[in-house]
Amino acid sequence: MLKTKPEYDEMLSAVGRRLQSNAIRKLTKLLGSREVISLAAGAPSFETFPVQELAEISARVLRDHGRFALQYGPTRGLSGLVEAVAGILRSRGIADSKPSEIVMTTGSQQGLDLIARVLLDPGDVVLVELPSYIGGLIALYNAQAELVGVRQDDDGMVISDLREKIDRALSEGRRVKCIYTIPNFQNPSGVTLAGERRKELAEVAEQYDLLIIEDDAYFDLYFTEEASRLMPLAALCPDRVVYLGTFSKVLAPGLRSAWLRAPEALATKVELAKEGADLSSSMFDQAIVIEAIREGLIERRLPELREFYRIRCRAMLEALERFAPAESHWTKPVGGFFILMQLAAETDAAAALPEAIENGVAYVPGQSFFVDGSGANTLRLAYSKESPEAIKDGVQRMCRVFQNAKALVEG
Amino acid sequence: MLKTKPEYDEMLSAVGRRLQSNAIRKLTKLLGSREVISLAAGAPSFETFPVQELAEISARVLRDHGRFALQYGPTRGLSGLVEAVAGILRSRGIADSKPSEIVMTTGSQQGLDLIARVLLDPGDVVLVELPSYIGGLIALYNAQAELVGVRQDDDGMVISDLREKIDRALSEGRRVKCIYTIPNFQNPSGVTLAGERRKELAEVAEQYDLLIIEDDAYFDLYFTEEASRLMPLAALCPDRVVYLGTFSKVLAPGLRSAWLRAPEALATKVELAKEGADLSSSMFDQAIVIEAIREGLIERRLPELREFYRIRCRAMLEALERFAPAESHWTKPVGGFFILMQLAAETDAAAALPEAIENGVAYVPGQSFFVDGSGANTLRLAYSKESPEAIKDGVQRMCRVFQNAKALVEG
Repeated sequence: MLKTKPEYDEMLSAVGRRLQSNAIRKLTKLLGSREVISLAAGAPSFETFPVQELAEISARVLRDHGRFALQYGPTRGLSGLVEAVAGILRSRGIADSKPSEIVMTTGSQQGLDLIARVLLDPGDVVLVELPSYIGGLIALYNAQAELVGVRQDDDGMVISDLREKIDRALSEGRRVKCIYTIPNFQNPSGVTLAGERRKELAEVAEQYDLLIIEDDAYFDLYFTEEASRLMPLAALCPDRVVYLGTFSKVLAPGLRSAWLRAPEALATKVELAKEGADLSSSMFDQAIVIEAIREGLIERRLPELREFYRIRCRAMLEALERFAPAESHWTKPVGGFFILMQLAAETDAAAALPEAIENGVAYVPGQSFFVDGSGANTLRLAYSKESPEAIKDGVQRMCRVFQNAKALVEG
Repeated sequence: MLKTKPEYDEMLSAVGRRLQSNAIRKLTKLLGSREVISLAAGAPSFETFPVQELAEISARVLRDHGRFALQYGPTRGLSGLVEAVAGILRSRGIADSKPSEIVMTTGSQQGLDLIARVLLDPGDVVLVELPSYIGGLIALYNAQAELVGVRQDDDGMVISDLREKIDRALSEGRRVKCIYTIPNFQNPSGVTLAGERRKELAEVAEQYDLLIIEDDAYFDLYFTEEASRLMPLAALCPDRVVYLGTFSKVLAPGLRSAWLRAPEALATKVELAKEGADLSSSMFDQAIVIEAIREGLIERRLPELREFYRIRCRAMLEALERFAPAESHWTKPVGGFFILMQLAAETDAAAALPEAIENGVAYVPGQSFFVDGSGANTLRLAYSKESPEAIKDGVQRMCRVFQNAKALVEG
């Protein structure tokens, strides 16, 4: 009787392995009461939520705009918010951004899902970074795309490898549709696409007639002046880019308020897909975000948010330098929430996790993020949730476990 | 470069005609400043929103639970809310309802979308009522289902016609997957599935091994004692029913908080699909709804909500009896928001709409709701938005237009 789609079942089992991060998340939550230091959860720290300000805004929104904030609303989003987002896009160098190109979404996850549904036929090839954000990969898998991984180095996606992968897929007669990238402070690697690479990536998209899905969730959370000057790909080639931004990291993810910006004809299709998907995102959340923008709450808090995460990133980097086992490497983020750590080739990060949790620290094994199944010796470390002291403590505990695991392997 | 899916384009044009209600909605909104009486919008009246109470709850939620209400949360929904929904389901006679069968959704629209995605392969046949809710039809079309219409009379879906349509589809070698029904105070017809028919429908589902998607958005808004005693299909055959309920009509649709209840194995797949679709619905909205349930706000207001809509329904029925042209018929709802009006066979409700708007009243032409393309002489009238006086005035204006249209046809 439960005649679900056979492909869906296949997809579920294919994705199953990659969903272990979800299991980890649950495990971490379960162990929360045991005071485990979580370097796993990729969420903003609740210390950064402007609770008091949002309480005042919520009350005001309901008092002054309750009739709209509590009613059904336009699928594209409240017009005041769409216009505010157009302003944000222009401030990021995406010139001439118009409301007709913007759709508000229930988190960037919905933007990824909608664009995948509108754009992809089963079997279409999408180029993704090695490693990449699991939620993005799931949205692409759900549209039955074939995901092909592209190598990253410290400057982000390696363009020669990108070309090679595209050429190979084309020579195999496959349809190559688009490139999914997180250029700034990537989840999970923490790596940033260098300025020169951005131009090259735009050229590749032009040359092969591809669309770029640019997931820029961490844009505002840079730690260096240099990182603040990087231009979105959507600023370089707006006609080829679907640009995703969110208020989750700079305000609060529980409000589920994000946006998608695409060439107008594509945005219209995304709007139609969204109408079928949820009619609209929360009107109350949108009305709150409008007010938060209008009264400068978001803009005003950015410097302290950057400092908040910069301090935690430094604490983690210092702890890694001090405690990490020999033969391990890690990325040096200039923004965002994450560091990717690479252990000695023979160390299995997933296998070491239970012992790490026993020792009071959790992380996400990296293999889940690699579409080619590599990365068993990698792990994602998030410095976004814990205090600098807890981060140091957690890294020390974790590295002790890795030392033991290595000793065991070398036995 | 905008290589969207060809099927998607086809789907868009196929659905295009049916989306005229959307155009009407926009038109209605445009004309809002011209004081048009809207019998078109299928939304709850904003007079029913408990603005003050929600302002107090919002402030309390942020003060006491801000860390959770503003953070990422579980895809299935906040556990307190899932448990509260299990209680609601049990109170509706859906015995043994467990949290493991429930997924909170971004409005019931998302529930429809997720179940369609999980359940349907392209070409699968879904039986739907003639007429039916456009949002539900869109979700099913988006999964590339073939929709087959089943006749309704004053007692809801005609079971003999249902059997006939299933038999025909099967004899044509098509896969018949499920039945989509809105048994209570249906949108757009206002018709209610009679108690005896519910048993027969459950038998049909059993006999043909079909799943039922039961969209029960209006459950609480009955006007008669008899209507209050009708059992959901999910109470009759829980293993065969995906049951959708919502807080949109009894609290506020802007909060986008609804639920889906399905047999456990299916609920697990829906959860996974939702993870890819938006990670979770608004946590803030969910936290507010929990509090609204806990302090009895929703339950307490139901009697006055029923009275609110009952009075408006009566006003519309009285106005129709007084002003409707000869040869027209209309349904007599025992709950919900809608009346379906049927004009003389030769009158085109869509063609008459511009003149109706000229005369200060808007409605939704009915053809959009009929998957077989019939219903050109029908229209949906919503009594949910306007005051009883405005409803009478609007119906009078509208009927005058229909009289003219008829006179014109008859020359």
